[in-house]
Amino acid sequence: MDSAALLDLLGNENRRRILRLLARRPCYVTEISDYLGVSPKAVIDHLRKLEEAGLVESHVDDGRRKYFSIARNLRLEVNVTPYDFGTKSAYSASPNLDITSWKHVSLHVERATQAAAELNSEEETEDTDIRTDAAGASDSPPADVADGASDSDSPGDADQPPNADLAGLAADLEQLERLENELSMAQRWVQGRLTETLDRISDHFDGVDGRFYAELLRGLATGPEPPDRLAQRVDAPPDVVADALEGLAAHGVVERDGDQWRLNV
Amino acid sequence: MDSAALLDLLGNENRRRILRLLARRPCYVTEISDYLGVSPKAVIDHLRKLEEAGLVESHVDDGRRKYFSIARNLRLEVNVTPYDFGTKSAYSASPNLDITSWKHVSLHVERATQAAAELNSEEETEDTDIRTDAAGASDSPPADVADGASDSDSPGDADQPPNADLAGLAADLEQLERLENELSMAQRWVQGRLTETLDRISDHFDGVDGRFYAELLRGLATGPEPPDRLAQRVDAPPDVVADALEGLAAHGVVERDGDQWRLNV
Repeated sequence: MDSAALLDLLGNENRRRILRLLARRPCYVTEISDYLGVSPKAVIDHLRKLEEAGLVESHVDDGRRKYFSIARNLRLEVNVTPYDFGTKSAYSASPNLDITSWKHVSLHVERATQAAAELNSEEETEDTDIRTDAAGASDSPPADVADGASDSDSPGDADQPPNADLAGLAADLEQLERLENELSMAQRWVQGRLTETLDRISDHFDGVDGRFYAELLRGLATGPEPPDRLAQRVDAPPDVVADALEGLAAHGVVERDGDQWRLNV
Repeated sequence: MDSAALLDLLGNENRRRILRLLARRPCYVTEISDYLGVSPKAVIDHLRKLEEAGLVESHVDDGRRKYFSIARNLRLEVNVTPYDFGTKSAYSASPNLDITSWKHVSLHVERATQAAAELNSEEETEDTDIRTDAAGASDSPPADVADGASDSDSPGDADQPPNADLAGLAADLEQLERLENELSMAQRWVQGRLTETLDRISDHFDGVDGRFYAELLRGLATGPEPPDRLAQRVDAPPDVVADALEGLAAHGVVERDGDQWRLNV
């Protein structure tokens, strides 16, 4: 979803309070209205905006009461530095994402998490979870057989192993929360290093142009770019950008790559 | 800075446009007003709010013109899931942060970045950058000598090595941008896995209570908690929380730790 629309929505304290409430449990309008001390009419208006943006969804229960809940996973990141005001929003990444192929980041998570992810993924046919294999001893146990097996493993169920599964999930939870904190810290660290690096590039050049060169190099840091797009990105006339690129190329910092320019690293 | 205040500020499109403009270059009021097509009075009002929040600062140049720029590095993260509406804002992490001590995340960045960080840090006395050592051949070269050395290394300067330093910084830039993208993807992956794990914990319990148990275990996933704080966190009566914890303890999922409860993982 669009970051700007998301920031507009989140810029309202009552909408944030509604989201905080719905993250705790699905609610109906009167509940929300009572909790917030805001008129039902205003609550309905906020819910409509959140629903239109796909953040919130509703369903009607057996008693014909309409419950609202958070519709899906979403992340928003805002980066503010002297060189950057960037916003990025995205849905959760797929469980099948190959997290081992990254070049600069390794995640260390233990097997339990993987097993949980695989068990939960309906496309998955292989299953490493021992209890599930036992439950579906016949060929090709479908995903819902596995689910059935874990349902019967509730704390009240005495003839099951002592919640091996639930303890495993709790362990996963702990690992994932810690991982999230470390990733967040890592991103703050990278933000600082990026700004430092751009400062140092700026300092390389005398006078006011340093910032421009820093932006130019940054524009190429995510991959080769055609000169016109680069000019647009740094908001400078194409001929100024062309001259600057030739100057940098003469010093071996950038190079042509067909119709594009790239860092010579 | 306070995430709520930050979201209130960023919830305005014109303030976002001002920040985007200032991230490109420092500007004075008339420039911003012309660029945005918004009255100088409104621009001044937005700038005042941004300045009060510490996002923007101003300085007066030689021609007595007041320029505004982004004051410092800041990151905001918003997490929306059926279990969570969380906001987190923080300044950049220190360059001296020990990024090797994390348990679940490893960052792979090459030496150049480290050298740049060390060169830039004024507290740093040891210096691994060869050019800087040469420039400050006498004892204890202060940080500003190093800065002077890199200033003279501009592309116009022919009697210097061919911008080895600048090319190194460009390489750092590329690495850091990629690292940032991978970290961002990693967080989206973790977000998905966390929601899956909480779903699976919910599924463990019959009926409506599953969500409550999932929240309870999540409340302990970041470390031991006293029962009253846990009750506050999951917004449930203390006796209900106490009963639930005893039930989970009987199945070995949680355990007492003095006055606190913790996951038994």
